[in-house]
Amino acid sequence: MKIAVLGGDGYCGWATALYLSARGHSVAIADSCVRRQWDAELGVQTLTPIRPLSERVQTWQKITSNTIDVFMGDVTDYDFLSSMISAFEPEAVIHFAEQRSAPYSMIDRKHAVFTQMNNVVGTLNLVFALRELRPDCHLIKLGTMGEYGTPNIDIEEGYIAIEHNGRKDVLPFPKQPGSFYHLSKVHDSHNILFACKIWKLRATDLNQGVVYGTVTDETALDEALVNRFDYDDIFGTVLNRFCVQAAIGSPLTVYGKGGQTRGFLDIRDTVRCIEIACLHPAAPGECRVFNQFTEQFSDLDLARMVKAAGERMGLAVELDHLQNPRVEAEEHYYNAKHSKLLDLGLEPHYLSDSLLDSLMNIAVKYRHRVDPSIMLPQVDWRHPSSERRRRVTDTSEPVAPAKIKRAAASASSAKRGASPLASK
Amino acid sequence: MKIAVLGGDGYCGWATALYLSARGHSVAIADSCVRRQWDAELGVQTLTPIRPLSERVQTWQKITSNTIDVFMGDVTDYDFLSSMISAFEPEAVIHFAEQRSAPYSMIDRKHAVFTQMNNVVGTLNLVFALRELRPDCHLIKLGTMGEYGTPNIDIEEGYIAIEHNGRKDVLPFPKQPGSFYHLSKVHDSHNILFACKIWKLRATDLNQGVVYGTVTDETALDEALVNRFDYDDIFGTVLNRFCVQAAIGSPLTVYGKGGQTRGFLDIRDTVRCIEIACLHPAAPGECRVFNQFTEQFSDLDLARMVKAAGERMGLAVELDHLQNPRVEAEEHYYNAKHSKLLDLGLEPHYLSDSLLDSLMNIAVKYRHRVDPSIMLPQVDWRHPSSERRRRVTDTSEPVAPAKIKRAAASASSAKRGASPLASK
Repeated sequence: MKIAVLGGDGYCGWATALYLSARGHSVAIADSCVRRQWDAELGVQTLTPIRPLSERVQTWQKITSNTIDVFMGDVTDYDFLSSMISAFEPEAVIHFAEQRSAPYSMIDRKHAVFTQMNNVVGTLNLVFALRELRPDCHLIKLGTMGEYGTPNIDIEEGYIAIEHNGRKDVLPFPKQPGSFYHLSKVHDSHNILFACKIWKLRATDLNQGVVYGTVTDETALDEALVNRFDYDDIFGTVLNRFCVQAAIGSPLTVYGKGGQTRGFLDIRDTVRCIEIACLHPAAPGECRVFNQFTEQFSDLDLARMVKAAGERMGLAVELDHLQNPRVEAEEHYYNAKHSKLLDLGLEPHYLSDSLLDSLMNIAVKYRHRVDPSIMLPQVDWRHPSSERRRRVTDTSEPVAPAKIKRAAASASSAKRGASPLASK
Repeated sequence: MKIAVLGGDGYCGWATALYLSARGHSVAIADSCVRRQWDAELGVQTLTPIRPLSERVQTWQKITSNTIDVFMGDVTDYDFLSSMISAFEPEAVIHFAEQRSAPYSMIDRKHAVFTQMNNVVGTLNLVFALRELRPDCHLIKLGTMGEYGTPNIDIEEGYIAIEHNGRKDVLPFPKQPGSFYHLSKVHDSHNILFACKIWKLRATDLNQGVVYGTVTDETALDEALVNRFDYDDIFGTVLNRFCVQAAIGSPLTVYGKGGQTRGFLDIRDTVRCIEIACLHPAAPGECRVFNQFTEQFSDLDLARMVKAAGERMGLAVELDHLQNPRVEAEEHYYNAKHSKLLDLGLEPHYLSDSLLDSLMNIAVKYRHRVDPSIMLPQVDWRHPSSERRRRVTDTSEPVAPAKIKRAAASASSAKRGASPLASK
């Protein structure tokens, strides 16, 4: 199958491109490498030393004899996008090419506007390009479970049957996103649903949970294929950050009470879900929604699991409860359906002790690269300003949000940012 | 009360600014006059000869001694918007400053992208400006009843109580907008709801129906205060177009079966609804939604009413059923709630024979200005392309969508575009 991976230099995109290539599909990556620029802008870098995209793809070809075409450009540039679609003639397009960080979108007005423009325009360009050039091509779009927020009812997969005043309909599930980034994904979902309706495009909107893990069978083949492992306050996800904090002897920073519950999945399931979607395309005119995650955890669940994993390695791990920089419920009902991908054959990799141990091993392996100053939340939902950007050039210690309490579990006296293991 | 009217040179904005000024409020208009540029781009003009904004405001001051401040600029320009908010210090901001035509957004990709960027960025800029500069100011935002689409259940005012699998919540009403323009309003609604939640802004989202009429007490005071009367295929609304078609002896162009039912209101109710919202502000953190219309009609209802009004004036009026250029249900359930503004004191002007007669009189008064070539739909939801723009410089007759049937009600032999009353 000919599959284009937009955003194929990013975390999920790179793993997906390699997985699909290894499974015999003909893969092209389109990317502008702007994700690497955002690292530079923020003064952060992935824990794992990723290589330039050209080197990544050349290494893959050397090892496997599989070619991955690279189209270097931005999907918000319609000339680029349409020429890429014309040249490659994909049967499926996986659209990862969006700004994907909630804190990034909350830095200030410019980052909020940029995130919505970048994501909405890229997706609009894509539906117009498919309509014009490849109307039968299957659009697979990465959404997020964060589109739904935390309603007090079960979360269905995209649509909900509503009975109201004696009448019935099946309608798009109401959305309550929690950042300007999450809002951009809601905007995309509405735009795509409409494009399917009027132009009979085929689309699968994957509302993905929080992804963890970095190693897949393919990225493990060579050090030059290593994937991202983001642990900073902007692009890092919670489980990665906890593992790195445990590895360097910093307390795990739980936001508020830590009762925030979300869907999670292993990156090895991300890549498989994408292939499942490709192999079972939506029908013309159909905008299908799958909730793409395998398990639900709260922040505090994860912190306790990482603490236990750290202790198995002989590390003393503490928990700090910081004032929550986000505006979100810290105790809430959460029950999100996620059976459609299982029905199509997904066999989940659940979060196990062995996976946690392997994540901890990666964190320990690369701990000489850790910058402990980039893990404390510096973006405040209630007060967006450009402070986060100024901090990059400020050599003083970042100011942590007020600490609520520290779990009295350990006698460690490690100070944040002062660990002998830290590189800075 | 100090009230800023963003988009105060437009159809609803101008009438609102005058009404509020006449009622003793201190009013400022912010506008870039881009709406006039779109007329030029499309080769169309309002039936009524509107004057430059400067002349309008000077005339108003001469007649009433009331001053209306004018800030000339674009709300997508944050420097302009924030300086305007700082200088005027409004207690309420009415946000009309968006691209408001569904067909305009469907012309081609560029118009779709422009519409969403223009509307979404303007509204994002506004919520950021209010947060920073006037957090207690009441944001009154014009949405549209078209955000809801035509669900098979009653449409509530913004939110719906859902019971699902034994649990309950009140959630945003699911949206099914029918154009990239309507989608932009859905995006705005989600963004504003979020801004209220995280920053405790106060907002009223007015989901307005289709507005008809042109005369208000204030615009009637002087010919230089006359309001827009758009009847073209892009910015014209259905009732205006029917009246103009009847006035020049052209058949009324009903899209498809004409069973599409929507909410409508008189412009005199628009301006009163806005004042009601101003006088009863939302609470801090509240994003209140009012459905702002007074009656429901189908296309065919309206065509028949205009036909009757025309016949009262001795005009022979026919109906043509054209192939629908939009993708929309032509027979559907429609029952939208609209009690909240009534509860706050709105006394509707219902669509009556006398109002229809007055609309017909305006159409007849200005029929020497009618361009009959701009009333046939030239934008096709299924095939967006730039044809509509090329047509401006094309002197041949526009091609009408396939005619389905003509109501055999009249013996008139008038040909479209060949009426002796037409100016071209």
